[in-house]
Amino acid sequence: MHTSPVPVAPSNGVLQPIAIDRIVIDGGFWGERQQLNADAIIPHCLKWETKAGWVENFVHTLEGTIHEHRQGREFADSDVYKLIEAMAWEAGRSDDAELDAEIERLGAMIKAVQREDGYLNTNFDNPGQQPRYTDFEWGHELYNYGHLIQAAVARIRTGRADSVIVDVATRVADHVVAEFGAGANEKICGHPEIEVALAEFARATGDERYLEQASLFIERRGHDLLADIEWGRSYYQDDQPYRDAEVLVGHSVRALYLTSAAIDVAVEKGDVELLEIAKRQYDNALARRTYITGGMGSHHQDEAFGDDFELPPDRSYCETCAGIGSVMVAWRLLLATGDITYGDAIERALYNIVATSTAEDGQGFFYSNTLHRRTPAEVALPDVQVPRANSSLRAPWFDVSCCPTNVARTFATLAGYLAARTDDGVALVQYAPTTLDVDGIGLKVETAYPYEGEVNIRVTAAAEPFVLTLRIPAWAAGATVNGESAEPGVFRLEGVTAGDEVQLVLPLQPRLVRPDARIDAIRGTVAVERGPLVLCAESVDLPEGMTVNELVVDPSGELRAHGAGAVLPGARIAVAEDDWPYAAAPSAEVGETFDVPLVPYHSWANRGPATMRVWLPVA
Amino acid sequence: MHTSPVPVAPSNGVLQPIAIDRIVIDGGFWGERQQLNADAIIPHCLKWETKAGWVENFVHTLEGTIHEHRQGREFADSDVYKLIEAMAWEAGRSDDAELDAEIERLGAMIKAVQREDGYLNTNFDNPGQQPRYTDFEWGHELYNYGHLIQAAVARIRTGRADSVIVDVATRVADHVVAEFGAGANEKICGHPEIEVALAEFARATGDERYLEQASLFIERRGHDLLADIEWGRSYYQDDQPYRDAEVLVGHSVRALYLTSAAIDVAVEKGDVELLEIAKRQYDNALARRTYITGGMGSHHQDEAFGDDFELPPDRSYCETCAGIGSVMVAWRLLLATGDITYGDAIERALYNIVATSTAEDGQGFFYSNTLHRRTPAEVALPDVQVPRANSSLRAPWFDVSCCPTNVARTFATLAGYLAARTDDGVALVQYAPTTLDVDGIGLKVETAYPYEGEVNIRVTAAAEPFVLTLRIPAWAAGATVNGESAEPGVFRLEGVTAGDEVQLVLPLQPRLVRPDARIDAIRGTVAVERGPLVLCAESVDLPEGMTVNELVVDPSGELRAHGAGAVLPGARIAVAEDDWPYAAAPSAEVGETFDVPLVPYHSWANRGPATMRVWLPVA
Repeated sequence: MHTSPVPVAPSNGVLQPIAIDRIVIDGGFWGERQQLNADAIIPHCLKWETKAGWVENFVHTLEGTIHEHRQGREFADSDVYKLIEAMAWEAGRSDDAELDAEIERLGAMIKAVQREDGYLNTNFDNPGQQPRYTDFEWGHELYNYGHLIQAAVARIRTGRADSVIVDVATRVADHVVAEFGAGANEKICGHPEIEVALAEFARATGDERYLEQASLFIERRGHDLLADIEWGRSYYQDDQPYRDAEVLVGHSVRALYLTSAAIDVAVEKGDVELLEIAKRQYDNALARRTYITGGMGSHHQDEAFGDDFELPPDRSYCETCAGIGSVMVAWRLLLATGDITYGDAIERALYNIVATSTAEDGQGFFYSNTLHRRTPAEVALPDVQVPRANSSLRAPWFDVSCCPTNVARTFATLAGYLAARTDDGVALVQYAPTTLDVDGIGLKVETAYPYEGEVNIRVTAAAEPFVLTLRIPAWAAGATVNGESAEPGVFRLEGVTAGDEVQLVLPLQPRLVRPDARIDAIRGTVAVERGPLVLCAESVDLPEGMTVNELVVDPSGELRAHGAGAVLPGARIAVAEDDWPYAAAPSAEVGETFDVPLVPYHSWANRGPATMRVWLPVA
Repeated sequence: MHTSPVPVAPSNGVLQPIAIDRIVIDGGFWGERQQLNADAIIPHCLKWETKAGWVENFVHTLEGTIHEHRQGREFADSDVYKLIEAMAWEAGRSDDAELDAEIERLGAMIKAVQREDGYLNTNFDNPGQQPRYTDFEWGHELYNYGHLIQAAVARIRTGRADSVIVDVATRVADHVVAEFGAGANEKICGHPEIEVALAEFARATGDERYLEQASLFIERRGHDLLADIEWGRSYYQDDQPYRDAEVLVGHSVRALYLTSAAIDVAVEKGDVELLEIAKRQYDNALARRTYITGGMGSHHQDEAFGDDFELPPDRSYCETCAGIGSVMVAWRLLLATGDITYGDAIERALYNIVATSTAEDGQGFFYSNTLHRRTPAEVALPDVQVPRANSSLRAPWFDVSCCPTNVARTFATLAGYLAARTDDGVALVQYAPTTLDVDGIGLKVETAYPYEGEVNIRVTAAAEPFVLTLRIPAWAAGATVNGESAEPGVFRLEGVTAGDEVQLVLPLQPRLVRPDARIDAIRGTVAVERGPLVLCAESVDLPEGMTVNELVVDPSGELRAHGAGAVLPGARIAVAEDDWPYAAAPSAEVGETFDVPLVPYHSWANRGPATMRVWLPVA
């Protein structure tokens, strides 16, 4: 039973998480976003969930008129719960009493509509609605519970086990065990989420029944408990038993939530085989089904992974929630296996998906994060909820608005993903200005990373000499620690004591990157990265009237740093208009060379509608 | 008023269609398929529509129990109507009395549920159902009418104006005019189809009110009469007025049906501007948004056109119905403008989409026609209706089964698309063994095209000397007519008289084709065509254990004819497995060269599950 404020709390594992009251982010890239979360994102989400009527759904349910008034999709309840989770973490982090009171207000509203037997939903089983548990494919009843339970986990871990939401979630969890336990209603939810929530609730409460239920839900998949649908049972990971899958398939958020759950269950039950299976699926997804941004999901239609190496940049879906799901999985694997190089995947997804999703003012979000925009986006109006996941500049709110609250709960707990306890000291996994104070070890980290490569670590306390472990990113060939070469991977500095100063230098010169030959859609292109940041060309930086679609670059030219990005020589191609685009020798004239500015991908689309591309065709 | 058996009957235009009782296909590539249609496809469709319950829907509607029993999607009625249209054309072509009786039986069943005021639908407005005309976005009520009316048009033109379905359709059309005329309920249908049907019904009946109604429906689009949806109003061509669009957008079948209607209305009303607009949109779609197969539609999600040059082969949708829609548009433009080079687009879509869709035994169909299959397809069981448009080997039936009946009606009328009357003679647009006898001109065409390049045309009758116009396909550099060079485009042979023999020779050596530099997804690849056939590599022809994903070819090597396809030197690449697919210099070893057999794309997936690709990466 683990009640300190950590986003994930395994009872065992090679590494141990550090509570977010023991590690604090002191400004910088992530500190600014954490503050933006408190000041803007969370209030924005509450405003929109109220405006969209998703909060009011609970009131109408209490009044018995929900069938006339319900707003939002079948999973709208979950967005309220996910917001409460974000608020709970933020209230715990910042000791914000108002936020705390708001959580209790929302919790009381939710509690009021919970049934005697624990059932809770605004979309089923109320007067005039379809009966409960009649649509496991799309109903999301268990999915909704999952996010409710995770809100309760956040409350317990931030010292508010007495919160009304914990009471509600406990009754829900008990109801789930009674209803869906072994020998009872042996079903599963189309959208995995209840599994990871129950595993974490078992950790938070010490009640093993919840862990067992999570395990049952995982092992039941792949036995045709859900209907075949247009996109196949792989859409909801029901095409084969979990243990048989070699790689992540189907709806990417579902796949990643399920994998998180499998790791949690494996760790708690000591199921080495299950851990290895989850690791295999994720590792294979990283190697063959992940965009350079760390984004996952190649299909818009079913928000799903494609086949191996099916990674079209212009149709990349890369849902923000999948980026967060990838962080969830990688962090769990890092703790369980002790392999801190999973921090590479976390870093990539955080800087290039999570940070990209959020507008600079915290009032807009990308739901999907494309790698190539061929036409300037329509401008999202600040007060209009949009029906589209894939359009517009960052939009304030979506009909399906899972991403903003997912970003909010991630930012609120971000410090918890930066470092971990090792048996012999501390491992720094991500580099940000932080103050750490755990088990007698004190560290002060100062850095302007990712914009500058120096990371200065001062040891402010050490009860005894310890080992400081550093992640050297795979891209960081030429890194040094205290002036000595540090190969990409893991760097251990032994016998560290109070007063020591350690300087890590990560090389931030821009780098040309080429794709595996099997990725068809980006053959003949290069990308440029700088540190952990993927760069992109945005048409606002190109000559007047030019889109990125006519851009070619010369990878043999000088690639040099420029602002936070880079500059590479390139040119504009001119293709004669023809009435058919396939020929023995189609024409394309390459114009004069000019400097092509490349900017961090996360910063794109903050300067008005533009075209953009990450992968740059070679002249 | 035009009642001879032509699939499209403009009252004016540069060229005139030839009725299918005046031009007969004598076997060969298309003759075999026309026979397959009569023997297998039409009976197959009737069997499945019965089995799926879509026919029975009318019976349950009559019984007042449809709300309990209805099967199929909201547009299931249309599939019954489209089958009746196919049966009507086939009954007219073959004088099949049994087929004729079956049509009347189905017609009587439909008539029985038509309301007093003409309204007709099994999915709305019956006891227990949603009221009529309450869902123009998705309800498909007018779309269903469209296909009903087209069935009636087929009956009228094949001499059965007394058919019960003509009576039903007339009452429907009158109801539509009354309900949706100027100043009445000024709405439009989310799925265009009623427009082209009404325009053709006006031609078949001589009643101008139907033409006017078609015109109204077209001009109403683009004024937000339909709701904004996840995919935007462009999905159903309601994002801008029809006349403002520069290129086809949105759901490709909808766009093509609407364009067909616009051409019909333009021709009948002498609206030169509207004709030019429709032509512009289609021409631009051909130049920028069409696959090498003639397929249209790059998005699975919304079955839609993508942006210009967004043509991913592995996510090509290329719905069979869109291929047919493209034939409908190109044929109309050909007649209206006299530009027989639109026959190029027709030829491409017929050989590479329509012919590809249909299994050799006529018992299975592709709904979408991908250009790259990375993993072997699952086998579709012969007796299982599949929920997926994009999976399996050709499947016997789909939850959405618009394609098989669309193929059936196209095959039944195919002769009508092969030639046209010019002011001074006859133009041959497609080459197939045919017997033609129109207005005193008789032709006997003998050829094994597209497998052999010789087309022998014997003039069997000529009331007076006439001009024989031949389409020389754009790909046919080196073609000859009677031994003399014939440039791609239009070839006119003047003073042709009875007894003349003309030999057209089309060069059928395989050709390498490269894409426009702006098509990102196929940069660094080539394709091979032979005559009108696009070729592809299929893994059943590759060395044991190899998929097309490891294939590269050497376009500088000898490309030679082989069977109906070709052979090109190629090799297998070996890529070292890595944990991340992006690097400064990813490895890829090219193995030994071997001969890569390429087969006609339309023939693929007839030899069991396989991987396949049209665009071949260059080593």
